[in-house]
Amino acid sequence: MRSNNIYLDYNATTPLAPEVVDCLREVNPHYWGNPSSPYLRGLLVKEKIEEARTNIAKLVGTPHSEDIIFTSGGTESNNMVIFGTTKYLKEWNEKQKSPLSGIPHVITTNVEHDSVILPIKRLQEDGLIDVTIVPVTKKGVIVAEDLLSAVRPNTCLITMMMANNETGVIMPVAEIGRQLQRVNRKRIADGLIKILYHTDAAQAIGKIPVDVEDLLVDYLTIVGHKFYGPRIGSLYVRGPNSATPIYPMFYGGGQENGIRPGTENAPMTIGLGKAAALAAQFFNQNQSLFICFREYLEEKLKERFGECAVIHFRDPDIPFLPNTCSVSLLTNEKFSGSDILRKCHRVEASVGAACHSQDKPSAILSNSGLSPELARSTIRLSIGLLTSKSEIDDAVQDLANAIRILKDGKKKKENLS
Amino acid sequence: MRSNNIYLDYNATTPLAPEVVDCLREVNPHYWGNPSSPYLRGLLVKEKIEEARTNIAKLVGTPHSEDIIFTSGGTESNNMVIFGTTKYLKEWNEKQKSPLSGIPHVITTNVEHDSVILPIKRLQEDGLIDVTIVPVTKKGVIVAEDLLSAVRPNTCLITMMMANNETGVIMPVAEIGRQLQRVNRKRIADGLIKILYHTDAAQAIGKIPVDVEDLLVDYLTIVGHKFYGPRIGSLYVRGPNSATPIYPMFYGGGQENGIRPGTENAPMTIGLGKAAALAAQFFNQNQSLFICFREYLEEKLKERFGECAVIHFRDPDIPFLPNTCSVSLLTNEKFSGSDILRKCHRVEASVGAACHSQDKPSAILSNSGLSPELARSTIRLSIGLLTSKSEIDDAVQDLANAIRILKDGKKKKENLS
Ligand SMILES: Cc1ncc(COP(=O)(O)O)c(C=O)c1O
Ligand SMILES: Cc1ncc(COP(=O)(O)O)c(C=O)c1O
Repeated sequence: MRSNNIYLDYNATTPLAPEVVDCLREVNPHYWGNPSSPYLRGLLVKEKIEEARTNIAKLVGTPHSEDIIFTSGGTESNNMVIFGTTKYLKEWNEKQKSPLSGIPHVITTNVEHDSVILPIKRLQEDGLIDVTIVPVTKKGVIVAEDLLSAVRPNTCLITMMMANNETGVIMPVAEIGRQLQRVNRKRIADGLIKILYHTDAAQAIGKIPVDVEDLLVDYLTIVGHKFYGPRIGSLYVRGPNSATPIYPMFYGGGQENGIRPGTENAPMTIGLGKAAALAAQFFNQNQSLFICFREYLEEKLKERFGECAVIHFRDPDIPFLPNTCSVSLLTNEKFSGSDILRKCHRVEASVGAACHSQDKPSAILSNSGLSPELARSTIRLSIGLLTSKSEIDDAVQDLANAIRILKDGKKKKENLS
Repeated sequence: MRSNNIYLDYNATTPLAPEVVDCLREVNPHYWGNPSSPYLRGLLVKEKIEEARTNIAKLVGTPHSEDIIFTSGGTESNNMVIFGTTKYLKEWNEKQKSPLSGIPHVITTNVEHDSVILPIKRLQEDGLIDVTIVPVTKKGVIVAEDLLSAVRPNTCLITMMMANNETGVIMPVAEIGRQLQRVNRKRIADGLIKILYHTDAAQAIGKIPVDVEDLLVDYLTIVGHKFYGPRIGSLYVRGPNSATPIYPMFYGGGQENGIRPGTENAPMTIGLGKAAALAAQFFNQNQSLFICFREYLEEKLKERFGECAVIHFRDPDIPFLPNTCSVSLLTNEKFSGSDILRKCHRVEASVGAACHSQDKPSAILSNSGLSPELARSTIRLSIGLLTSKSEIDDAVQDLANAIRILKDGKKKKENLS
C-alpha cells in the first residue's frame, strides 16, 4: 500500500511495530472483559494491563509500576500535569503554618509542544498561574542556569521537554534535575513549596535513554505512537499522591486509583506494553540504526546539494536525537521547505509539527536561533525503523527533482512575463 | 477461550463485533499516518476518520457529522459537558447587558453514572456550581415535572442519562426535551441564559432508538464499548460553538477544531465508525433478539425459582432496556446477589456498575425504590448479541447450583456450631 512513498516523518507518528499489530490481533477479539469486573474474564484483562504497566515502568527506568498512569495520549498527560499545578499550591497552603500568598508560578521554555504551552497560556489568561517562558539559546538548547534563575518562592512546576520534535535538540533534563534537588532541599528547609519537575519525553522514548532515576523528574509524558505503539499514552508520576501530588482532570468510575477514571482501553494498553517491551529490548540496535541511517542521509544530502544543504543543530556541544535531520536546501530562488515538499512525488516529511500549518515558518525554529529565511526553508526529515538506505537514496533524488520542478516552473513564469 | 463461561454482563462492556475486529485488523497495520499531515498517508487516514464521523452522526440521527467530537470515552464526554458549564455562564454574562449574578446551577438525577455525578460533586465542593439532584420515583424513573420544577434563573445545564445501566429504566428524555424548548423560549425572551441539555446515552445506543432530533438534546454521550465497538467514545454537540457552546478540557495541537486536541486515535476511531454502522444497520434485528432472549431468561427464572425470583422495574408504564434483567433471587437465608454470583461456576454477571464494589448494595437500586433487602439481593443480568438460549438455560441452572452450594455451606456451618 503506497509502497512507493518514502516516509520520513517518524517524529509525527510511527507505524505500529509488527509485533504490536500481532498483539492487537490476538487481544482485540479475546481480551475484551471489563478489567473492573470481579469474574475471570475481567481479571484476566486486568492482569494483562498490569503486565503492560510493568513494561512501561521498566522502559522509563523504574521498578514501581504503580507510578505509571494510563492516559489517552501525550496531550492528556501534559495537560494533566499542568492543570494540576493550580491545585497543588492551594492544597499545600492548606497544610502550612505560613502559607505562601499569590498564585502558582510555572516555568517552561519557548520551544515546547502546543500541548504544554497552550494549557499554560490558558491558565495564565485565566489569571490562575504566573508564567516564565525561558528562551533557548541560539543553538536551540536550554541553559540550566537560565531556567533555574527564573525560580520564585511561588514556583510550583518546571516543565521542559526532553527532546524537541522539530529541531531534535536534547535538553539538559538530568542536569537541571540534579540542580533542582539542591534547590528543593533548601526550599523545604525554608518552608517553601517543593518545585515539581515534568518532562515531556514524547520524542525521546525509544531514541535516547530515558531513565527517571537519572533525570530526577517527578512526571514524565509517554506517547505510544511515537515509538511504534498505539495512539494512547501514559504519565509517569513519582509515587502518585504519596511522593508526588497528581490531580485528576476527569471524575468517574475510579479506574487508575481515581487519577484517570474511565473504562480502561484494555487492548491499546496491552499493545502499549508490548511496544514498551520492544523499545527496551531493541534499544541499542535501534539507536545504532538511527545514527547510521541519519548520517547516511546527511552525507547524501551534502553529496547531492553541496553547500546548499545546511543541516541545523549540529553544534558539537549540543546533543540531538539520532533520527532527526533538520535541513535547509537553499536555492537562489529561496524556495520554502513546504514548496519543496509539495513538489515531492515520494517523500513524506514535514516542515514542523503535524498539527501546525505547513505554510507558516515555525516559531520553534526561529526561537531556536534560525533566521527567518533559514526557518522558512527548513525541512524536517525524521527517520525510523522502516527506513532503508535505498529509500534515503531515492528521497534525496526526489528532493532534487522537486527543486528542479520548482525552478522550471519559475523559469516558465519568468519567460511568460 | 473460556468458552465454558456464560457472559451476562453486556451492560458492563461488550466484545468487539467480528466486523470491527476485521476492520481493526486491516486498519492497524495500514492506516497509521498522522491525519494532520499534509501528504497522502495522512490524508487517507483523515478521510477514514471523517467516514467514521459520518457513520456515528447517522447512528444518533443527524446528518451533521461536524456535530460529532471524538473523545477517549464516556467518562471524558460526560466530564467535558459538565466542566464546560462553569465557563458557559461566565461567557454568556460577558455578552449581556444585564448579566445574571451567582454561579451556574446544574440539574441532574440521583441515578446517574459516577462519570456524571462525581464531576458535578467536585464542582459543587469547589463552590463553582449549585446543584439540584432530582430523585427518581419508586419505579426508578424521572418525572418531567419534578426535573423542570428545579429550574432557576441561573440554571445552565440539565444532565440526565437516557437509560440506567443497573435498572435498565429508560428516562423521558424526549418529553423533557420538548418541555425544555418551551422553557428556553420563554427564558430567552426574558433575558435569561438558555439551559443546555445533555443525555448520557452510554446504555441506550444499539438497544433503543437514539435520535437527537427526537430527544432535542444539545449534547449526547456515545460510548463505543457498550455497542460492540472499541474503547473510545464521542460526544454529540448540536452545532459545536455555533448553536451550542463546548469548552475543551485539554489544550494542544488543535485537533477536532481545538475542542479535543491530541493526535487522533485513528484506528479506534475508524473501528468506532464501523461499530456505529453495524448498530444502525442491524438495529431492529438486534432489538428483537434482545427482547426475545431477555423474555426467555425471565421465563426460565420464573420457572426455576418461582415466587423467589423477583424481577424489578417492570411497571407497565415505565419503559426499560430490552436486554436488562434486574432480579432478586430471594432465599430464606437472605443470600446477597454477590454471594450468589461468587458461587457461580459459569455465569459472569454483576450486582451493579463494574467500577463499583460488588459487596455494598448499590445506591442506584435503593434510590430507584428497592428496599435495602431487595437491593442487596439483586443481580443484574444483561444479555447481548452473543447470548444463546442454551446459555440462558445453563445460566439459570448455574444460579440454582450456586444457591444450593450456599445453602449446603450454611447448613454445614450450623451443624458444626
Ligand atoms: C514533543 C511532543 N509532545 C507531545 C505530543 C503530543 O502527543 P499527542 O498528539 O499524541 O497527544 C507530541 C506529538 O504530537 C510531541 O511531539
Ligand atoms: C451510563 C454510563 N455512563 C457512562 C459510562 C462510562 O463509560 P466509560 O467507563 O467507558 O468512560 C458507563 C459505563 O461504564 C455507563 O454505564
